[in-house]
Amino acid sequence: MRSALYAGDATIVVEDRPPVTPGPGQVQIEVAYTGICGTDLHILHGAMDQRVQTPQTIGHEMSGRVAALGPGVDDLTVGQPVTVMPLDWCGTCPACQAGHRHICHRLNFIGIDSAGSMQQRWTVPAGVVVPLPPELPLTHGALVEPTAVAVHDVRRAELRSGQKAVVIGGGPVGVLIALVSRSVGAQVTILELDPHRRAVAQALGLRTLDPAHDDIAAEVDAWTEGAGAAVAFEVSGSAAGVDTAVEVLAVRGRLVVVGIHNQPRQVDLFRFFWRELTMVGARVYDRGDYDTAIDLLSHGKVPAEALISRIEPLDNAAAAFTALRAGGDVMKVLIDCQEATA
Amino acid sequence: MRSALYAGDATIVVEDRPPVTPGPGQVQIEVAYTGICGTDLHILHGAMDQRVQTPQTIGHEMSGRVAALGPGVDDLTVGQPVTVMPLDWCGTCPACQAGHRHICHRLNFIGIDSAGSMQQRWTVPAGVVVPLPPELPLTHGALVEPTAVAVHDVRRAELRSGQKAVVIGGGPVGVLIALVSRSVGAQVTILELDPHRRAVAQALGLRTLDPAHDDIAAEVDAWTEGAGAAVAFEVSGSAAGVDTAVEVLAVRGRLVVVGIHNQPRQVDLFRFFWRELTMVGARVYDRGDYDTAIDLLSHGKVPAEALISRIEPLDNAAAAFTALRAGGDVMKVLIDCQEATA
Repeated sequence: MRSALYAGDATIVVEDRPPVTPGPGQVQIEVAYTGICGTDLHILHGAMDQRVQTPQTIGHEMSGRVAALGPGVDDLTVGQPVTVMPLDWCGTCPACQAGHRHICHRLNFIGIDSAGSMQQRWTVPAGVVVPLPPELPLTHGALVEPTAVAVHDVRRAELRSGQKAVVIGGGPVGVLIALVSRSVGAQVTILELDPHRRAVAQALGLRTLDPAHDDIAAEVDAWTEGAGAAVAFEVSGSAAGVDTAVEVLAVRGRLVVVGIHNQPRQVDLFRFFWRELTMVGARVYDRGDYDTAIDLLSHGKVPAEALISRIEPLDNAAAAFTALRAGGDVMKVLIDCQEATA
Repeated sequence: MRSALYAGDATIVVEDRPPVTPGPGQVQIEVAYTGICGTDLHILHGAMDQRVQTPQTIGHEMSGRVAALGPGVDDLTVGQPVTVMPLDWCGTCPACQAGHRHICHRLNFIGIDSAGSMQQRWTVPAGVVVPLPPELPLTHGALVEPTAVAVHDVRRAELRSGQKAVVIGGGPVGVLIALVSRSVGAQVTILELDPHRRAVAQALGLRTLDPAHDDIAAEVDAWTEGAGAAVAFEVSGSAAGVDTAVEVLAVRGRLVVVGIHNQPRQVDLFRFFWRELTMVGARVYDRGDYDTAIDLLSHGKVPAEALISRIEPLDNAAAAFTALRAGGDVMKVLIDCQEATA
């Protein structure tokens, strides 16, 4: 079978590899689609070389069908449509013991810390397999994982119906956060520099602003009648995004740290004191978030079709990464793992 | 009557001023004791000159007895022991409308933004007067306000019985936070550089560490069996305090910003993401915090006597400020406003 591997040195190679026969408690999945995530780009850039062994198959946003069951797995059937919640926790560390298994101290994030789904057959522990509704297209099923991220972020925000939220960064995760926020009855403004991404968000009925041209503080002040926003999602990973988030929040507002900040950021702690702000980190998801994400995709509240910019065959994976890295008019790119070549 | 005024230029003067006759809805209080707060020192240093008009009577941690009632005030009696919750909110701004009157956008903090209690007779709106139990010594009553700050901080921390908390900074507010934390059943470690302040805390049965000599991360790791602390209170106002707070927190731990940070601080946002940490600002208190503070002082859970280092007559106010500014073996200093001279 074909497999796309990160080989180190900013290189993706697609080559033949033998599929892994599922052992006891394992499931082999015939992968349909694997989305390319921002984390996959970080891996390609070498930013996660201390975690990712080479060569390694990457990918963790996926859909597929059960291909084979290892001994002892009896709650799944061959051919069943599934996705994977790629978290393999230890169960014994202080985080797991406190009930926060999704942020286990020794978490094995499957697709980063171990082999991922950008291959034709993927063998995983049965416990991470999540059934999909038969009526959900498998292209949409590949968006369950990033949608679950957004569901988790909105839950950490404690965002409620009628509140106003600012999403800083309008890439796939930012737009998903905006859509999930809307699904709970909140009003949303997305701040995004890229005109194509703003256009995608606008086509979904989402309000957008351009931080390069609009006076964000004044706009949010007018929008919220002087109160400020109840929630700000920092998805950009930039220093400027942090400043903006702190500036636009209302008294008792909540800043959710979604983006990856690889260096410490200057934060106006006096403003945290003065307005009694809250900042929370949000990382991955739990099984409840997956269930909500599947529900939102199944009912069209997250319109997957509008977010999928391109579907590329597995053998074109390296080119797809390169194109995504270059930016341009693109949101989510899926790799079709069913047919290796176009 | 005698009144201690901030005259600008790092100067406190004590001089004769006419008492203010209480108008409709006002109460005149015969002040017994006024504590010197860290904020008063900030005022003296000129750090709050944009808020404080000169000359102005400062002071907001106080106790006394009702001296005279203005027209329309019928729920207080002359001679009754009282303290003041020095918050005068507008009632109409977005913060007040959202129910967060204590952090009103246009808050008049009495004693900073308007005349305070470091005088013999103080006239205030009746709504800010809080009756004290007759059996509570008035020296202890002067500690209600800072104790209410600590109660509010612990409430913002959502600290629960059995949890472990680190308090960074062992001055009066830090020690009060530790005592209030203990009253809810939490275990506490105070980090404090000053040996006298550590000794005061230890005499109260509180565990202390010296950040200049102890390996804080290793100590907290051992104390919490590898989990980290559930809560960190940043009371020092220092960059190092922020770093330590973020470093010692457990997964889903809460950092409470109590200290004043007059410049932005570098914050490890990756750690917020990775451990799903929370940071909350905590400012002043509400009436419920006052009731809890009075209860803790009345039942000796906050042993006021141990925290009061010195009581100085009003005419010595300037010298008392100077001594406190110089540091040394001191926690809380009270100004006795009953007798102007020693």
